[in-house]
Amino acid sequence: MDKIETRLAELGLSLPPSAPSRALFLPGKISGNLLFLSGQICEWEGEPKYFGPVPAGFDVRTGQDAARMCALNLLYSIKAVAGSLDRVASVVRLGGFVAAPPGYGDGPLIVNGASQLFIDLWGEAGRHARTAVNVASLPANALVEIEATVELG
Amino acid sequence: MDKIETRLAELGLSLPPSAPSRALFLPGKISGNLLFLSGQICEWEGEPKYFGPVPAGFDVRTGQDAARMCALNLLYSIKAVAGSLDRVASVVRLGGFVAAPPGYGDGPLIVNGASQLFIDLWGEAGRHARTAVNVASLPANALVEIEATVELG
Amino acid sequence: MDKIETRLAELGLSLPPSAPSRALFLPGKISGNLLFLSGQICEWEGEPKYFGPVPAGFDVRTGQDAARMCALNLLYSIKAVAGSLDRVASVVRLGGFVAAPPGYGDGPLIVNGASQLFIDLWGEAGRHARTAVNVASLPANALVEIEATVELG
Repeated sequence: MDKIETRLAELGLSLPPSAPSRALFLPGKISGNLLFLSGQICEWEGEPKYFGPVPAGFDVRTGQDAARMCALNLLYSIKAVAGSLDRVASVVRLGGFVAAPPGYGDGPLIVNGASQLFIDLWGEAGRHARTAVNVASLPANALVEIEATVELG
Repeated sequence: MDKIETRLAELGLSLPPSAPSRALFLPGKISGNLLFLSGQICEWEGEPKYFGPVPAGFDVRTGQDAARMCALNLLYSIKAVAGSLDRVASVVRLGGFVAAPPGYGDGPLIVNGASQLFIDLWGEAGRHARTAVNVASLPANALVEIEATVELG
Repeated sequence: MDKIETRLAELGLSLPPSAPSRALFLPGKISGNLLFLSGQICEWEGEPKYFGPVPAGFDVRTGQDAARMCALNLLYSIKAVAGSLDRVASVVRLGGFVAAPPGYGDGPLIVNGASQLFIDLWGEAGRHARTAVNVASLPANALVEIEATVELG
């Protein structure tokens, strides 16, 4: 098993066994040494698990679990496109979208669930630029969607 | 006529005759061999044609027409900045924004109207990474806005 | 003082004295000669100054002030990551997010407050591709958030 997948297992996590294929877009596309990854929602093998919008009194830890699930799908995409997670030299940028109502200011805490996983896996190389915003709704009424750009070695 | 514009005509489509110029930003900007394109709304020669937010009982095919109009404006931008659509080596990434209310999960079906056109024109090279989200509102109250990054040859 | 900071002073503006550090993401990350900057809200030394959503009868000039504050934080990030604003060869792309309700079409006028500053500082090299959308809410309930990609020389 590759080094980063071994680290993932040590964290008690694993890649999803499968991911839905989309007729009209790819999980990611490479240009130069940048891999642009499609936004991934908090689904597991194609079944959405957390739904938006964020309700009143929401426990942010549930949102972090959802964001981490998005990140696991991004990892699956990286492996599918680049062959191995070990090819990632640097996590460049995350874009995080949370389905939340007006007046909800804690979107970044939710997106942290994804950021933390990239740092846990790649250390300093996993630290990234990031933009987080709250949107009206997401594909399949998911709670969170995360996109990423990574640099391949 | 260039090869891709010929294919566009074969699809029964054509570039808009003109597009509004924006005082404070460009239709796109090149860095290295990447062309970053400004978000385009579903307008024709500067006149918005489809308005958001998505209403109840919306026919998704209308939304796909709107997304394709955004894509035609993106094509106009590519030609304006790069000189010819034939310079595109790869469509790298689309970002799709649909003005829709909380609880609307079919944004990706709408954005497909743009993705399909890029695939029709460039085949495998037209397949791309993509992020689609629903937002509160868009410039000029448009229904859809699409941005893109393409690689030039 | 560097050339661009001198020009900033001539405009009667200055960089914020400090910016909050974020535990889980960076102000920006370099890949090749592109610097991807994290989204910055309209805060000053970590204290948000303009809040969303855009109210009825909103004076767009207030929104432009907020967008310019986001841009000043982006400049701070550029200096923090790249060492000097003079290293910027080209402003490639801005992404502007305004917290606004359905039916608000003037988001681009607000984001102009950021675009104008980049043009004032870098002239033609400061002109950029741009996407502007209105979202449900933003971190800390800010009114505006702006992200950017710049090319370093």
